[in-house]
Amino acid sequence: MITEVTRLREKQRTDRAELDALLDDVHVGHFAIVRDGAPVVFPTAVVRDGDRVLTHGSTGSPWLRALAAGAPTSLAVTAMDGLVVARSAFESSIHYRSAVLFGTCRPLADAEKIRAMDLITEALIPGRVAELRRHTDKEIAATQVLALPIETWSLKVSDGWPEDPPEDVAGDTWAGVVPLAPRYGVPRPAPDLRPGIPVPASINSLPGAP
Amino acid sequence: MITEVTRLREKQRTDRAELDALLDDVHVGHFAIVRDGAPVVFPTAVVRDGDRVLTHGSTGSPWLRALAAGAPTSLAVTAMDGLVVARSAFESSIHYRSAVLFGTCRPLADAEKIRAMDLITEALIPGRVAELRRHTDKEIAATQVLALPIETWSLKVSDGWPEDPPEDVAGDTWAGVVPLAPRYGVPRPAPDLRPGIPVPASINSLPGAP
Repeated sequence: MITEVTRLREKQRTDRAELDALLDDVHVGHFAIVRDGAPVVFPTAVVRDGDRVLTHGSTGSPWLRALAAGAPTSLAVTAMDGLVVARSAFESSIHYRSAVLFGTCRPLADAEKIRAMDLITEALIPGRVAELRRHTDKEIAATQVLALPIETWSLKVSDGWPEDPPEDVAGDTWAGVVPLAPRYGVPRPAPDLRPGIPVPASINSLPGAP
Repeated sequence: MITEVTRLREKQRTDRAELDALLDDVHVGHFAIVRDGAPVVFPTAVVRDGDRVLTHGSTGSPWLRALAAGAPTSLAVTAMDGLVVARSAFESSIHYRSAVLFGTCRPLADAEKIRAMDLITEALIPGRVAELRRHTDKEIAATQVLALPIETWSLKVSDGWPEDPPEDVAGDTWAGVVPLAPRYGVPRPAPDLRPGIPVPASINSLPGAP
């Protein structure tokens, strides 16, 4: 079910492919739950797996346990893609893609966890799983993986030009858009890295890394 | 009041200056509120103003109205600063700075709004206010500005190296950190920009813009 946005309705998108593109681009999510009647919001890594969004963490995490126990939740995944630089502060704004999902999470059984954990690693660093040893049983047991179904959601996208009134367009003020994107920097080897181990292909392939 | 984090306590920071640095770096915030008993999370631009965090939007926005009416809220401001590339998936993680604030917002009176609106513009594009015409009364009236006091908060920072066990360090797998930061791209003039208006100093000074 696509929920209707109440403001700036012209920015609402209903194309599931656009939602998927955002979820495949952005791996920081913010989950909200209600705790003792008050809202609490938690940032965490999120990765899409078909028709669900995965998140993971320690089995000891109280808020993951609350989600695993079926607490109703809302998950926001947001990209800030640029500045909309208008001729007035009022018309200036931000290019963004903003998804909000609603529902309850389901904890994955051990049999499903390995594939899900690998999928999370690959989403963050494509190619990394093949460079790593396999998970130990202890690591798998210590990891909680939750899935939120992509069922009830809304998506808003702001990607237009400034919309200044004619009297401002006639003036001398610049207007336009400045794109913004996260870029990786130069990889830094760990202090305990043994000599002679090169930066692997997965890391060299990250966008922006040299 | 600094709230205690329940997990990864060694990552908790209690230095207000570190909180301020995060709030001055990152202008995407996620507010959670409770609506009909269920949590809802909303992304929005946030800017620190001394001992409070400002957010703004249309006076017609239902969720801003709920905040203005005193709905208890939780605000998360999160930076993803890099990848912690360990020798196992289990030890791999993310460099992040994560602030969560709790409280209720107060709507600003008209007399306070202009300064707050200018502060928001300057936080996103330093130097821009001097390049713009002043706000009209209509624009001021149509803008809701809310302030959340910085009173009850927690801050977690992950900025360390991978912590692999000795048997993994002895192997042949690379480990390190890859920094990540948002970078501005080349400014794109609006289609209706009149000829001969150059890109202004404020835009040329954005980090990453040429």
